[in-house]
Amino acid sequence: MELSQIYAPIQADLNKVRDMLKSISRVDFTWLAQQLSHVVKGTGKGIRPALTLLSGKSFKYDLTYLLPMAVSVELMHTATLVHDDTIDKADTRRGQRTINSIWGDEIAILMGDYLFAKAGEFVADTQNLRVIKLFSQTLGTISSGEIVQWRASYNPTQTKDDYFHRIYGKTASLFSLSTQSGAILSQAPEESVGIMKEYGDNLGIAFQIVDDILDFTSTEETMGKPVGSDLLQGTLTLPAMLLMERHPADNPVRKFFDTRDKKYVAQAIQMVLSSDIISHCYKVAGKYCDRACRNIKSLPQPENRKSLLDLAEYIVQQGT
Amino acid sequence: MELSQIYAPIQADLNKVRDMLKSISRVDFTWLAQQLSHVVKGTGKGIRPALTLLSGKSFKYDLTYLLPMAVSVELMHTATLVHDDTIDKADTRRGQRTINSIWGDEIAILMGDYLFAKAGEFVADTQNLRVIKLFSQTLGTISSGEIVQWRASYNPTQTKDDYFHRIYGKTASLFSLSTQSGAILSQAPEESVGIMKEYGDNLGIAFQIVDDILDFTSTEETMGKPVGSDLLQGTLTLPAMLLMERHPADNPVRKFFDTRDKKYVAQAIQMVLSSDIISHCYKVAGKYCDRACRNIKSLPQPENRKSLLDLAEYIVQQGT
Repeated sequence: MELSQIYAPIQADLNKVRDMLKSISRVDFTWLAQQLSHVVKGTGKGIRPALTLLSGKSFKYDLTYLLPMAVSVELMHTATLVHDDTIDKADTRRGQRTINSIWGDEIAILMGDYLFAKAGEFVADTQNLRVIKLFSQTLGTISSGEIVQWRASYNPTQTKDDYFHRIYGKTASLFSLSTQSGAILSQAPEESVGIMKEYGDNLGIAFQIVDDILDFTSTEETMGKPVGSDLLQGTLTLPAMLLMERHPADNPVRKFFDTRDKKYVAQAIQMVLSSDIISHCYKVAGKYCDRACRNIKSLPQPENRKSLLDLAEYIVQQGT
Repeated sequence: MELSQIYAPIQADLNKVRDMLKSISRVDFTWLAQQLSHVVKGTGKGIRPALTLLSGKSFKYDLTYLLPMAVSVELMHTATLVHDDTIDKADTRRGQRTINSIWGDEIAILMGDYLFAKAGEFVADTQNLRVIKLFSQTLGTISSGEIVQWRASYNPTQTKDDYFHRIYGKTASLFSLSTQSGAILSQAPEESVGIMKEYGDNLGIAFQIVDDILDFTSTEETMGKPVGSDLLQGTLTLPAMLLMERHPADNPVRKFFDTRDKKYVAQAIQMVLSSDIISHCYKVAGKYCDRACRNIKSLPQPENRKSLLDLAEYIVQQGT
């Protein structure tokens, strides 16, 4: 299943979102415009704006409000990436150089703030106070989640609960904003807003688990960043946690956290790949995917409903 | 004239704002709470929230909306300071250690984002879409202004227009949000909203000029940061510009920008202090202060009107 098929019901509108994102880079200062166009150029698969549009499509679909919302979630996502890359001192992202690596940390901090501001302007254009409040609450959840993740760096004693809490904050909360806001802005009944929240919450967790898997199984070429990046930054993800569980003594993850010697990261990747840890992680992701979809069948609009189900399947099959 | 006298009409409500700011530090994670309480503890004179309350006081004064707005402008201000200190690698602010100097740049970036999010939640509580939009536009103005300032660092060829444009972005725009939002949320007539915008715009510029003066005339003890900080960071302020104008050849500012030898900063400060540049700068600030106040007399509520006029006078007399 290709993304283009899944996006079919909303593809034309998703293109409008991309045009609106590009329009942000038309600002007064040539140099600022140049930076913004660099940021906007890198936009990836557009899963978050697609979620907003697909969530709205089952109800009273009104682009007046859904388009600015879709732009807003993608901008918030981009802003958090710009700050994350600065914090992680990352050189590449989605295969292109990061803002911090080209223009320095100072500009990257301010550029992230500017993108948050633009995201805030677009969400204000939805004219919906509930969605506006949810937008700021989500940014609070993401940034406090990132603080917790940063504090937990190189700490080998985290629990799986810590992990799920963390990935809810850093990823699922924004998926949840994307789906809920789509439903709210399309005047969905309250029960359906709840179903779209459940979909966003669980799909976001599944998405992050798969992202954490790909950090072990993918190539630098495919990912646009080095393999093993999470471990190298001291972030403990599900595959690494399972490896520690299975080899409590003499574990390369713990050794890397103790010594920061990169040879242990290579060893950890090798051990994970030659075990059944990856297939176990895909099963966990699949469980969240099932939870995401369990009430989707009660939504109207079969074609759109199928896209939501297919998108969930697409997400948990990445890399398989 | 003491601030306590000027604040008299709104002092009790300003105390409520401070309590609300403190309440933000009561969050789930002990460690996060500790950081936030450090941030909130440092809140200074509260000029921005005072402006919101005083601007509302002339009209239909309703704390339901004015209190969250006042909290929001102070939080936005604090968030920008946290990021500015990170960018400037500042060790102290308002006499206490900065977030970046205690916990590192990474936490400071995320803490700033968290404070923006909280500011966004509070502004959403005003339930006023115009004010909400203005809030995000202001954050965009501040951050793009900071980007321009950063790009202009150590550039000796800036014009005074560049300077006024820059200080509008970094300071006056938030003063303007504070005063306009106070008036809007108090159902002021459109003409009065315009008067409060004019007050905020011009008072903000006067405030920043005086701040730039104090960087030359004050002591580290009074300011809570080293004297000459602006020049040391490559920021060209009005006193330095006037010094360059008067001594186009053989100028210590230009020499410092070329060599980064700090002895030239000391020399520049000495030359400014032994000239009439400071009194000239106070006159410029006074001109903006007059503009700020020129239509204030048309507002109702004499006691409150007097506070607005006295606050303007207080601001341009700091350090004299």
